[in-house]
Amino acid sequence: MDRCIYVCYSISMDTDCANLFLSKRVSGIRSSVIREILKITVKDSEFLSFAGGLPNPNLLEKELLLQATEKTINDSRDVAFQYGDSTGYEILKHHIQHSFTNGMDMEGFSICITHGSQQGLELLGKFFMEEGTNVLLEDPVYLGALQAFSPYHPNFISLPLESDGPNLLELENIFIEKKIHCFYSNPSHQNPSTITWSIEKRKKVAALLDQYDVILIEDEAYLYLDFFGTLYPSIHSFRKNRDLSFVIGSFSKIISPGFRLGWVLVPNRFLKVFTNAKQGNDLNTNQFSQVVISHLLSLMPLVDHLDKIRSYYLNQKQYLVELINHYLPEVSFQDPKGGMFLWVMFPNVLESEMMEGILEKKVVMVPGNEFRIQKSDSTYFRMNFSFLPKAEMEEGVKRVNQVYRDIIT
Amino acid sequence: MDRCIYVCYSISMDTDCANLFLSKRVSGIRSSVIREILKITVKDSEFLSFAGGLPNPNLLEKELLLQATEKTINDSRDVAFQYGDSTGYEILKHHIQHSFTNGMDMEGFSICITHGSQQGLELLGKFFMEEGTNVLLEDPVYLGALQAFSPYHPNFISLPLESDGPNLLELENIFIEKKIHCFYSNPSHQNPSTITWSIEKRKKVAALLDQYDVILIEDEAYLYLDFFGTLYPSIHSFRKNRDLSFVIGSFSKIISPGFRLGWVLVPNRFLKVFTNAKQGNDLNTNQFSQVVISHLLSLMPLVDHLDKIRSYYLNQKQYLVELINHYLPEVSFQDPKGGMFLWVMFPNVLESEMMEGILEKKVVMVPGNEFRIQKSDSTYFRMNFSFLPKAEMEEGVKRVNQVYRDIIT
Repeated sequence: MDRCIYVCYSISMDTDCANLFLSKRVSGIRSSVIREILKITVKDSEFLSFAGGLPNPNLLEKELLLQATEKTINDSRDVAFQYGDSTGYEILKHHIQHSFTNGMDMEGFSICITHGSQQGLELLGKFFMEEGTNVLLEDPVYLGALQAFSPYHPNFISLPLESDGPNLLELENIFIEKKIHCFYSNPSHQNPSTITWSIEKRKKVAALLDQYDVILIEDEAYLYLDFFGTLYPSIHSFRKNRDLSFVIGSFSKIISPGFRLGWVLVPNRFLKVFTNAKQGNDLNTNQFSQVVISHLLSLMPLVDHLDKIRSYYLNQKQYLVELINHYLPEVSFQDPKGGMFLWVMFPNVLESEMMEGILEKKVVMVPGNEFRIQKSDSTYFRMNFSFLPKAEMEEGVKRVNQVYRDIIT
Repeated sequence: MDRCIYVCYSISMDTDCANLFLSKRVSGIRSSVIREILKITVKDSEFLSFAGGLPNPNLLEKELLLQATEKTINDSRDVAFQYGDSTGYEILKHHIQHSFTNGMDMEGFSICITHGSQQGLELLGKFFMEEGTNVLLEDPVYLGALQAFSPYHPNFISLPLESDGPNLLELENIFIEKKIHCFYSNPSHQNPSTITWSIEKRKKVAALLDQYDVILIEDEAYLYLDFFGTLYPSIHSFRKNRDLSFVIGSFSKIISPGFRLGWVLVPNRFLKVFTNAKQGNDLNTNQFSQVVISHLLSLMPLVDHLDKIRSYYLNQKQYLVELINHYLPEVSFQDPKGGMFLWVMFPNVLESEMMEGILEKKVVMVPGNEFRIQKSDSTYFRMNFSFLPKAEMEEGVKRVNQVYRDIIT
């Protein structure tokens, strides 16, 4: 009953008997504390949540949304209410190519639109990962990538991050010791650590990836959320062997997660297999959303919109930093230059104690070990600052402070 | 280089070298002739297509769509433009439970909303299928199911269909000879054969599934497209062991495929694993579409809407039947009672010859062997009647007739 042990270890089934019917793959399926927390906070409005990566929906202008949907229904019905190309809606691809490829040389690449960047991760896991595949991940790592890759049972190998990216000696040692097949990285405003790699490290890692023939999955979900509009060149842009790089982007953080639209820049030699696998997954991405967002991007002054969300997030970030400095002077974090999180280390306290305490006080943050392959003894929490209004942020930090004080004193 | 041979067999890669990097799983990924044809017909408007399963987008009332999107933007922004519950939007689940479960006893079941019914198939493939799993399929079978299941490398076993469902003796023999793990069936207006199982056969198959402990994946995408509104009880409703049944539904054929919304009725003992796997695939289904369609269902007189599309499709079907009887008296088909296809047998001609001829004449249908595990020598084509206006249908049938005449004379 090998299978059963596996399954019971990583998910608690409602009925053990169900396990007998499930594939071995299921033992790799992970739950997400974030999603569980999201459910709690939706049901109980007294909860204050620093947990989700929720953009503020009020940053989208209502008038523009109304215009974009009207245009969709009046002028684009035949496309919007029909099946579509499995690689995505042509006009939206043009918008992405024009505005969201960060000056990348697209020669030899195609844009494939996916059902959120998460679907891009799941498809790349499907292609490249199986039992025995060595997959290198940053430590800490984006939880959604673990959820997407785990069912395919690769060996995960962790690469600790420094404040400007990976330790290069350590990285080279890993490459020497083990045949690494894929490297998944989130080099700009990483979720959860907020670390942004230096250009120097991007160049050097690119050279190592070339030397060791490693597939790069570069997740740039936060690229356009730099508070000062800095756009970092992708690791991929420094590679000689560009054919082994996939770059992932998303509209979730810059427009809205409600449209569930992301994209993957796919080397053409993998385009056919990507398209066919996408078909198997869902035939094609939501046409209605693709058309609406295309109209929205035509109507919207994009630069102004990005400026607006960046300055809003910067302001929110500064407020949370002030609150934490005021109420929780013992904790430490690297002040982020973009994104929507702080990655906060709480000294002299166990993660489980903190978690228990904050849930009781109806405030939530995501425990750091959710983002790790090997559990860490240090207690980190990821705190989102994009969602809560300022007064609620303050109340939330006060509650966290009470819990922390109660434990350490 | 076992892997390479596998891969090259089922997909033709642009660069052989790419194969070296792909997982063995990729060898199972199938392309879809239907999607290739769709692309051709989009690019060249002279093509007349009987190929897709495309509903007619004009059956959706523009005014209602405008109202539904306005309500979404004005009243439901916080839900529509945000992340959501991985099992779906609560209000849409209520609509499904109320109007689209065909009186099923929902005790012990939960509704999970998916990115089209195709995603339901992919998730169920992920859970239940791996190398060595015996999966029973109808012959012919829905191509999308093959695309969803194939990457997981199960053994497919074919069950030939009679005009009222499977041959029961044959089915029992299969169960005796092999341990069948899952049975995928599309018992009402099957795509592509248009066959609808008799109630008697549903009952008997349910008993056999119970006796042999088989998981049933019951795909009811066409249930509500019966021309006379007949709703057949699901196979699942006759099972004692209901816990081993998943029922799949879709809004694509009755509202619009543009919203990419389907659902799975999931036995509660599998709910947690379903939810977690869904998270790994895409976090959650498109919230914007879920909210719009919820408003649409509240605004829309559903019975009238279904009556309208049914009578439209019946009318279209009758016209295609008349055309075929007039121009192509040699071919044979079972007159369908619902759905959007004819499954037409062309005697004395090879599938490949017909296919070559019709592409030259710029008319397309889907070759029957696309829907089979083992190729058949009989030449079948699936012809859609829901999409083309009548004049174009006639022109299309004339072109098909010319090709057929040229070959057989």
